[in-house]
Amino acid sequence: MTMINAYDTASAGALDPDDKTLIDRRARALGPAYRLFYEKPLHIVRGEGVWLWDKSGKKYLDAYNNVASVGHCHPRVVQAISGQLGVLNTHTRYLHEDVVAYAERLLATMPDALGHVMFTCTGSEANDIALRVARSYTKRQGVIVTRLAYHGLTEAVAEMSPSLGAFAPRGARIRLIDAPDTLRVPPQDQAAKLAADLGKAIAEMRADGIEPAAFIVDTIFSSDGLQPDPAGFLKPAVDLIRAEGGIFIADEVQPGFARTGDAFWGFQRHGLVPDMVTMGKPMGNGFPVSGVAMRPELVKDFGEKARYFNTFGGNPVAAAAGMAVLDVIEDEALQANASRTGAFIKEGLHDIATRRSAIGDVRGAGLFLAVECVTDHETNTPDAGRAGFIVNHLRENGVLISATGPGANILKIRPPLVLQRPEAQLFLDAVETAFAAADLRLAPSR
Amino acid sequence: MTMINAYDTASAGALDPDDKTLIDRRARALGPAYRLFYEKPLHIVRGEGVWLWDKSGKKYLDAYNNVASVGHCHPRVVQAISGQLGVLNTHTRYLHEDVVAYAERLLATMPDALGHVMFTCTGSEANDIALRVARSYTKRQGVIVTRLAYHGLTEAVAEMSPSLGAFAPRGARIRLIDAPDTLRVPPQDQAAKLAADLGKAIAEMRADGIEPAAFIVDTIFSSDGLQPDPAGFLKPAVDLIRAEGGIFIADEVQPGFARTGDAFWGFQRHGLVPDMVTMGKPMGNGFPVSGVAMRPELVKDFGEKARYFNTFGGNPVAAAAGMAVLDVIEDEALQANASRTGAFIKEGLHDIATRRSAIGDVRGAGLFLAVECVTDHETNTPDAGRAGFIVNHLRENGVLISATGPGANILKIRPPLVLQRPEAQLFLDAVETAFAAADLRLAPSR
Repeated sequence: MTMINAYDTASAGALDPDDKTLIDRRARALGPAYRLFYEKPLHIVRGEGVWLWDKSGKKYLDAYNNVASVGHCHPRVVQAISGQLGVLNTHTRYLHEDVVAYAERLLATMPDALGHVMFTCTGSEANDIALRVARSYTKRQGVIVTRLAYHGLTEAVAEMSPSLGAFAPRGARIRLIDAPDTLRVPPQDQAAKLAADLGKAIAEMRADGIEPAAFIVDTIFSSDGLQPDPAGFLKPAVDLIRAEGGIFIADEVQPGFARTGDAFWGFQRHGLVPDMVTMGKPMGNGFPVSGVAMRPELVKDFGEKARYFNTFGGNPVAAAAGMAVLDVIEDEALQANASRTGAFIKEGLHDIATRRSAIGDVRGAGLFLAVECVTDHETNTPDAGRAGFIVNHLRENGVLISATGPGANILKIRPPLVLQRPEAQLFLDAVETAFAAADLRLAPSR
Repeated sequence: MTMINAYDTASAGALDPDDKTLIDRRARALGPAYRLFYEKPLHIVRGEGVWLWDKSGKKYLDAYNNVASVGHCHPRVVQAISGQLGVLNTHTRYLHEDVVAYAERLLATMPDALGHVMFTCTGSEANDIALRVARSYTKRQGVIVTRLAYHGLTEAVAEMSPSLGAFAPRGARIRLIDAPDTLRVPPQDQAAKLAADLGKAIAEMRADGIEPAAFIVDTIFSSDGLQPDPAGFLKPAVDLIRAEGGIFIADEVQPGFARTGDAFWGFQRHGLVPDMVTMGKPMGNGFPVSGVAMRPELVKDFGEKARYFNTFGGNPVAAAAGMAVLDVIEDEALQANASRTGAFIKEGLHDIATRRSAIGDVRGAGLFLAVECVTDHETNTPDAGRAGFIVNHLRENGVLISATGPGANILKIRPPLVLQRPEAQLFLDAVETAFAAADLRLAPSR
């Protein structure tokens, strides 16, 4: 959720007058909470596959947007949604085949222990209902998250989303621990450190009279700067929260649905079975659908006693959208493509890194990659200025990415899963050019 | 949110074996939180206008569903969504004309004081963000709601939704007051009683060290049994919460978008200007879109400091859906139709009431109507059994409604706004028949 705000290169040129008018109207109507990417915002009017076009007809390679995961405006998804919209769009209090078939199909992608799935409309709602179920089941309130976690925007999940900053105050029931850090903690220590930190947080929480209900993480730690390695490091912490009577919630809103290539879900890379799995963003390729899968035992009491009903959640159109996305992932072998094309990009980035001391680390899984910009290889000090320059140089050059992490220095590369090798090569060439330009324009990295 | 669970008449017949299988699969996949309307659930497969069809081809007049407000599968809405889906579906961090134009158009339906609108995906999210903004602006925590209010399902709004029952415990920051009661409180006393009850709740809250941030009501009190009259009764309570330093939030998720006929928004019937207005359900005719409008001053600090971003909220497809709904309401003059056809139905129900002592009250605004079933006119004791019988008799007869209210005895009539006079007459005939059948089958009302 860390944002690029003001990194435009001098070459960006003046704002189109019509865009200026639209930006003013936008600020008036939507108010100050709405931000735009880039100092000179992008006015995008069309999308197809991995491509976006702005109003002037300029074409951008989208290496950032994970919502349109099977490609912008994928015709099969468009057709599935449009078709169902014309036939029926009610809700889950009438019997309908599709929501059941979709639920079964989703559950088939998961370990058998996760026996039920409930549908919501956004990742925030999925995490919020997961929390409600977790607290109701454990009869406890405490939650442990990582230091720069993002789990959504409702009051209950905003208070456990420290990446939102101090204005969304951390709740009294929440404790923070360090995320793993590939660059600054030796790989062999990540698992033990995470579990030790979790143990300490639980002890501190208990000292305050709060019992731990859940440990929840984005299994690829996106807002913490992308921390995929070494796969498996999550296991001891998950074992610990269970030993302490809490449950483990895998937030798959970002890594889920085949993005990591080697697995359909991020948690599978860690060789574990969560108690609950929340999912969202790419689930309907832009249609608002999300959900939470869980061990049936967790929701038994809640399900029988709480009067739960989500008006739009799991309606026939949402089910059609979700099913079409699963169809496309399968029929176009997008998990294999994420693995193959992701590996090609990672290799290319590693190759660029051999020529650029500003690159402190290259990491990722599948088509979710990160490049850490640092001032030097000795101190690995985050270089947000350089990351911003790269993001904006790429944009001027027709390639969209972003920057994230505690130091806003980590390039976040997260293209639609349909990205193929020729576009991946275009992307690598643009990155090489951007780093070369940065060395000319900024103080060279040491 | 009160549900009909088990009121089937004996004539309902056996469950279709395929439906039985589907219900079992559904329970396995979705778990115990998912309920179905009716003991013998409806398996709906198609919708058009005010009509729904079940799997066997049986046709139902839909006098219940307010989400498909401009009619099931309205071709203009379907086309608007489908068209935009094929062109672009990104998010609000790129500039896009449609979300701005839609925001302006929505705000034009409201008093000038409401200057900004923010977009979310569900009514729950709209109420949740409204609360976050209200609490951030007032720097207070307390909220007052009515005794059987429903404002949504996130943790923060579930704790102020007492209609969810004891399993969603009322938060420590929440106080409940009686809703107005057309049948049991003299009309001339409603306004004063509501304000007096609010004043008492504020005093009690303060005695517990909690300051009132907001008073929030569904302006037609749907889950409290539908309380529209006498229009204007809200004003003194709204004046009071402001005098006490809190704000007034109008939850327009149910009454909004022309349903009440005499006004586009429910609060307009009460001659007041809310500080915030939340909206949802009919906003996209089934597409998940919702929002909150507010006085700009309320969101200034929050907007500048909180990092707020709703991934799907206000995306180009949501804007297209919302705009199409406004177009249809305007071009098909649905507010005038709600007023005219609603008045025709109300008159017809009053006429039936002259022949049926089981009807204690008929009330409503536009196409949101209620019939209160009572054991007798002296005690006005709620008769849930009769209401259930009527709901199920109507269903067998091809008409869909529901029952609600503290006593589950209030028939809830809330058809799509495209309902015309011939269907309204069909509806009235079916209601007359159902009440006659009830007198034959149940102990007659006194």
